[in-house]
Amino acid sequence: MVGFALFGAGRIGRLHAHNILRHPRAELVQLYDVLRPAAEALARETGAAVAPSIEAALADSRVQAIIIASSTDTHVDLITRGVRAGKAVFCEKPIALDLARVDACWREIEPFDPLFQIGFNRRFDPSMAELKRRLDAQELGPLRQLVITSRDPDLPSLDYLRRSGGILRDMTIHDFDMARFLLPEEPQEVMCMASVQFEPRLAELGDHDTAVVLLRTRSGIQAVIMNSRRAAYGYDQRVEALCEGGALFVGNLRPHAVERWDSGATGAAAPLLHFFVERYRESYERELDAFIEAIERGQPPPVGFEDGRRALLLAEAAYRSLAQGGVVAVPSS
Amino acid sequence: MVGFALFGAGRIGRLHAHNILRHPRAELVQLYDVLRPAAEALARETGAAVAPSIEAALADSRVQAIIIASSTDTHVDLITRGVRAGKAVFCEKPIALDLARVDACWREIEPFDPLFQIGFNRRFDPSMAELKRRLDAQELGPLRQLVITSRDPDLPSLDYLRRSGGILRDMTIHDFDMARFLLPEEPQEVMCMASVQFEPRLAELGDHDTAVVLLRTRSGIQAVIMNSRRAAYGYDQRVEALCEGGALFVGNLRPHAVERWDSGATGAAAPLLHFFVERYRESYERELDAFIEAIERGQPPPVGFEDGRRALLLAEAAYRSLAQGGVVAVPSS
Amino acid sequence: MVGFALFGAGRIGRLHAHNILRHPRAELVQLYDVLRPAAEALARETGAAVAPSIEAALADSRVQAIIIASSTDTHVDLITRGVRAGKAVFCEKPIALDLARVDACWREIEPFDPLFQIGFNRRFDPSMAELKRRLDAQELGPLRQLVITSRDPDLPSLDYLRRSGGILRDMTIHDFDMARFLLPEEPQEVMCMASVQFEPRLAELGDHDTAVVLLRTRSGIQAVIMNSRRAAYGYDQRVEALCEGGALFVGNLRPHAVERWDSGATGAAAPLLHFFVERYRESYERELDAFIEAIERGQPPPVGFEDGRRALLLAEAAYRSLAQGGVVAVPSS
Amino acid sequence: MVGFALFGAGRIGRLHAHNILRHPRAELVQLYDVLRPAAEALARETGAAVAPSIEAALADSRVQAIIIASSTDTHVDLITRGVRAGKAVFCEKPIALDLARVDACWREIEPFDPLFQIGFNRRFDPSMAELKRRLDAQELGPLRQLVITSRDPDLPSLDYLRRSGGILRDMTIHDFDMARFLLPEEPQEVMCMASVQFEPRLAELGDHDTAVVLLRTRSGIQAVIMNSRRAAYGYDQRVEALCEGGALFVGNLRPHAVERWDSGATGAAAPLLHFFVERYRESYERELDAFIEAIERGQPPPVGFEDGRRALLLAEAAYRSLAQGGVVAVPSS
Repeated sequence: MVGFALFGAGRIGRLHAHNILRHPRAELVQLYDVLRPAAEALARETGAAVAPSIEAALADSRVQAIIIASSTDTHVDLITRGVRAGKAVFCEKPIALDLARVDACWREIEPFDPLFQIGFNRRFDPSMAELKRRLDAQELGPLRQLVITSRDPDLPSLDYLRRSGGILRDMTIHDFDMARFLLPEEPQEVMCMASVQFEPRLAELGDHDTAVVLLRTRSGIQAVIMNSRRAAYGYDQRVEALCEGGALFVGNLRPHAVERWDSGATGAAAPLLHFFVERYRESYERELDAFIEAIERGQPPPVGFEDGRRALLLAEAAYRSLAQGGVVAVPSS
Repeated sequence: MVGFALFGAGRIGRLHAHNILRHPRAELVQLYDVLRPAAEALARETGAAVAPSIEAALADSRVQAIIIASSTDTHVDLITRGVRAGKAVFCEKPIALDLARVDACWREIEPFDPLFQIGFNRRFDPSMAELKRRLDAQELGPLRQLVITSRDPDLPSLDYLRRSGGILRDMTIHDFDMARFLLPEEPQEVMCMASVQFEPRLAELGDHDTAVVLLRTRSGIQAVIMNSRRAAYGYDQRVEALCEGGALFVGNLRPHAVERWDSGATGAAAPLLHFFVERYRESYERELDAFIEAIERGQPPPVGFEDGRRALLLAEAAYRSLAQGGVVAVPSS
Repeated sequence: MVGFALFGAGRIGRLHAHNILRHPRAELVQLYDVLRPAAEALARETGAAVAPSIEAALADSRVQAIIIASSTDTHVDLITRGVRAGKAVFCEKPIALDLARVDACWREIEPFDPLFQIGFNRRFDPSMAELKRRLDAQELGPLRQLVITSRDPDLPSLDYLRRSGGILRDMTIHDFDMARFLLPEEPQEVMCMASVQFEPRLAELGDHDTAVVLLRTRSGIQAVIMNSRRAAYGYDQRVEALCEGGALFVGNLRPHAVERWDSGATGAAAPLLHFFVERYRESYERELDAFIEAIERGQPPPVGFEDGRRALLLAEAAYRSLAQGGVVAVPSS
Repeated sequence: MVGFALFGAGRIGRLHAHNILRHPRAELVQLYDVLRPAAEALARETGAAVAPSIEAALADSRVQAIIIASSTDTHVDLITRGVRAGKAVFCEKPIALDLARVDACWREIEPFDPLFQIGFNRRFDPSMAELKRRLDAQELGPLRQLVITSRDPDLPSLDYLRRSGGILRDMTIHDFDMARFLLPEEPQEVMCMASVQFEPRLAELGDHDTAVVLLRTRSGIQAVIMNSRRAAYGYDQRVEALCEGGALFVGNLRPHAVERWDSGATGAAAPLLHFFVERYRESYERELDAFIEAIERGQPPPVGFEDGRRALLLAEAAYRSLAQGGVVAVPSS
């Protein structure tokens, strides 16, 4: 059994807590949140202890691994303390909102040869993983063009948006990782176009709600990422991989398989699974399982610190492209 | 060029007239309808002459072939006169509403070795023909179960229904032929269940608007035919062929490829092509082409008198099953 | 917490054991199987105790409810003993293979006013439950025709088949219940056609691998059930409900959302979820949840003894129809 | 009846010739091709006369309209002569491969107030027209993002490619027009990324086989065009319009509605209609009909000279973006 301390009892923390509960080889030992009532409520549901402090949580010798699901600005500190305390660390994305902090964090923890996993859960989605498997096997020959459509069902609160780091760091970051996951080479060039289409107040924040990012690898493979903060029909998560011998598509999922056919429309299915907690339920379970397996085997997790860093690198390059209005080279390291 | 006389200037007659016009090797020469204004209107559109009488139409030496698209009660007479006049005959289904008349008609015309095609146009539908081709090739091994769904968009007028011969002779007749077309053996047994579900006045006519017919061949292959006089979502025409190694499905067609995704439903496509004129547009063209080719080559058309007779035989057996409440053997000839 | 004793450690027993484990308000206390090693293996996985005998399992005062997942011939005995011991009883279908035994069982247990749930799990499937909800709400007006397609991916062993009670009692039984679940009235008439199409040795057993059953309610609503013991493309579970104002369809589920488009085919999705354990995973979880809720509230479960009995009544009527070759009336009680 | 002279008896010329033949109010009078045998072959099929020269064709007083379907380098000359001869002119895209020639052509013909239609047939496709209708009606509110996927089934000959003007002028030109057709405002900015992914010899020509173009209107609506010269699964023509209240999708078409379900894949449909002649069959018919109607009513056709010019303007801007590696402003006139 792997003992866990969980930092953060918000939506994503609760999700991890329940996945630990259901996992046959995991145990939730300590729970910490700056909002103590949130921690206590989750503790009642899960049977975990509420840690009075971060130190206390990390000091518990039963705690072998930590999950960081608190707000982004706490990530670097918790990662560093967790690694120093000898814990395996799972951290929700992003590591930080700027590359300098990420790099500084790495310099701090590298000497400890940390077992670190970043929360790019989509890699563990059964459909995305199946697509990756088939692309690696070149089932339809080499990849020629990759298209990622990623639209949220609706805008988060303006308050959230203010602290989000901008659409490219907050939302596209997952798609940057998906592109890197699926492409056979690192992207070398980035181009970006972004607009305010749904929420005029975003303009004041210098943020956007609609964006298209183009990536290009050394050999010329293009990846197109299309984002929108709002898609009234639900959480739209599609990938399309044009290969030499055809294409592979990942479509959307729905809560049930009932279709309505009437005089106005045929084949009308349910709206899409609303958001990431529903759509990626299985991938959250599987990323936890992969983390536990990495701990048990003492091997690096399948998606690590450098993956978190690389996605941010692309986000920053995309912001430079936006500012300059043109192609931007991605730093090679 | 094959010269045609057309009998009947109603909906289906007009359809044939325009298909003749568009055919590069066909010519509409004579046109006859008991309602002279209908004939005249169609003549103006097509440039054909209005024949003053059936005799006159048949006497025209340019007329090599006739198309019978008049009311069912005129079919046997026109078939007989056409064959006697040495014309190739294309007749809309059914030949007649009872088997005795059909058999009498055959005895009349058989000595002339007629070139006769019955209007089971669905055999010429690109999807149905493709299905047939694959079943014959045993692409997925032998056929094990056949399911035909056939629903009209809405009930015809009560007036039409009164003269229709009943749902099994008027509507299911096409599905009986489709079953015979696709099955590798003749059906030997019939079972039928029918109800009045949409139009209570049908009960007074002794007719039905909803029916299920089960057929069974000698080796036990089942064919299920599901009929309804009303499907609010459009003209529902599906076939499903369960084979040893999988299944082949023929789905429905729509007028365009636009889908709507919104907060209430996703994948909402257009209602189905409304009715047979739209859904089977291509099959009407192709059946005419097959008829012309048969004339040109002096060979029997792909679907002939016996096919018309056999479908009626099944309809009559199904009515006996309905009356007796049980399995009925289909006469072998 | 509801304490459970589980009888039967085979495939379906294991499934229930793990669902109990995952349920926040359930506890697996006792485990019994005539094959002690099977019980021990499952006990190791679940932490439950292996009961030395049925009596011992029932004697444990922590056991509030039992799940009967052992072979069909043991059901009546276990139901009776469980009810007498004051336990809530969940029993896999069927209660027994003949109606006389079912009725005798009821006479035994009725005086105890038992809390009894029969394992017709499909009622709890999110799609089937959604369909039911919409039919009850008459979203598209009254139901006019119901079509249930239910095909297993492949034939079970001949050994299993020999003890199965025949396709109508073993397989169609679920579809009889689904028809009753969805129809607004009890079926009054049954017609059945069955064949041996896939496994010739079934003929010697007097059994079949392909069947069509027609049901008709008092007001003439038809339900068509199409069964096959083999569908090479996977476990085919569809329902289609033709209503006055359109139709509702329940389609199949797949393990992932990847489609392949190549020069030979487009839209090629994964084979269907293989079999009931995968396809109805959620419905097994939800039926357990419903059982637990019924226990907690002291209310009758949503699907009870009479539902198990009624499905068998329809199976027996269908067998009579097969024997007589005609319509058979369903006894009203 | 509108009398036509047709210039060019190649693939697209033949298509127009046969559409004229089928049109009830059109007549093909004169036919000209520099390759006289091609003209003669098509004349035999259609009954038109072979014109000995362009002059002769234009001198025929029965010729009210001309269709220019000859090679691109002849377009400007034929347009100018046709207009001067007082004919209505339909010209296949593009008018010319560079904007200077197009503008010079306009200066020549403008004084004649020509009735001119450019061959952007996709606007007349039933699905695209339906999409346009719904966007104009704001069925789902304002348009927020437009995505056009347009992939040819395979690369044309190198010989064709050498004279094509490059992928953006030859292929994307249709998508530029589609974007303009569907967007509520003119694009103001263009960004382009292009690669050689399928045919290495294109690099020597300075051409590409894979391209992504981003357009942006004044109010920030983005249009994404994804092109590939090769899609092994067929001619891929999709549009997706994200609106405030949902999205509208135009999907692909197939030659028949048969699906195959087997142990390897389910829902496997036919490959897409192979190429533009098949996919856009109806839109070619409808654009001719619109042209004839414009002539009959003496009104401007729905898609004219300026539309041809604007699409080329976007192609040239995209080439500048490619050269400069950045956003390029589209000239406003």
